[in-house]
Amino acid sequence: MKNQHLEITCGRPLAQCLEEIEAFHGFKAPGMVLGLFMVHRAREQMGPGVEADAIVETRHCLPDAVQLFTPCTVGNGWLKILDWDKYALSLYDRHTRDGWRVWFDLEKARAFPVLYQWFMRLAPKKALPLETLLEAVLAAGAEVLSERAIQVTDFYQRQKKGGINLCPDCGEAFAAVQGERCLACQGSGYYRCRRDSSLRSG
Amino acid sequence: MKNQHLEITCGRPLAQCLEEIEAFHGFKAPGMVLGLFMVHRAREQMGPGVEADAIVETRHCLPDAVQLFTPCTVGNGWLKILDWDKYALSLYDRHTRDGWRVWFDLEKARAFPVLYQWFMRLAPKKALPLETLLEAVLAAGAEVLSERAIQVTDFYQRQKKGGINLCPDCGEAFAAVQGERCLACQGSGYYRCRRDSSLRSG
Repeated sequence: MKNQHLEITCGRPLAQCLEEIEAFHGFKAPGMVLGLFMVHRAREQMGPGVEADAIVETRHCLPDAVQLFTPCTVGNGWLKILDWDKYALSLYDRHTRDGWRVWFDLEKARAFPVLYQWFMRLAPKKALPLETLLEAVLAAGAEVLSERAIQVTDFYQRQKKGGINLCPDCGEAFAAVQGERCLACQGSGYYRCRRDSSLRSG
Repeated sequence: MKNQHLEITCGRPLAQCLEEIEAFHGFKAPGMVLGLFMVHRAREQMGPGVEADAIVETRHCLPDAVQLFTPCTVGNGWLKILDWDKYALSLYDRHTRDGWRVWFDLEKARAFPVLYQWFMRLAPKKALPLETLLEAVLAAGAEVLSERAIQVTDFYQRQKKGGINLCPDCGEAFAAVQGERCLACQGSGYYRCRRDSSLRSG
């Protein structure tokens, strides 16, 4: 059935997934919808009942698809992000490290020219309005994806919290590996304090 | 009113926030609930109607609080994560770069010994069961927070997508800055392929 991906995706109706994408990510980004199909494919391959960790190979869009449609998030440490700009993700069993990698397959995408042009940044943004892209992603669904059984050999370690120090300058706790003072008090901060008329006592 | 933070937080009832935390983060992590109060405080200071970007200073828990209770996510690029292990976050106007930094104030936390011991990792995990910690966080609420008006001087740039190359080995697109081949095909991959009896054609 060609449009089966329009029915149940990641355990809920596609329309609900699209609403969740908009609520979380801000809009129905084509990359997010593609990511939804990728997560669905990887979850199918893993089968039910596996506690899977995740790795994504780009920081654009895809991390949000994993965070919405799996239990893995940045903050709980089950999702790791590699800034490689590859549209691929892996789910894997955290005990055996066996898993599946799913990626956007450019060869398959050639059959969907709008999608191909968008992904390869071959057309100016104005030529591909959001609505057109979204239609193209929904029409293609999982047909532009490939997957492979993998064993994860790196980045699978849970990163434990290290020791913390108290910074003698700001009085805040910080990662002890940074030295005696926190990075901000060492001059690497990202802000300056300002006087604000609405400044309230802390 | 002492327990006003028990009522409306980040625009919805506290009970609903706790449910959302569990659904997204996997459990009602004390750091997430603390993060909820931190986001609430920062949003209050910013006032309504400001399109705020976010910076968090730890990758533990806090990124998830920002992702749940503001429009900023990792995947949409409005949230940046500094791996400093400081329990602090900033929201700032992306145009003026004026904003507010909110942090867990250890001096104030001394009045809440359970919270202080947990945060400073002074007690073994078993001595502080989740329920005890959660009660302590809810009892303290915003009373352990401080905030300051800031202007953001770094990390505010939206990171634009760079050029992409096609990898001659794997055929996938990747960030052109990596060279002629993608990092995985250069030998920095995180997986090996495995034969799997359930391997399906892509």
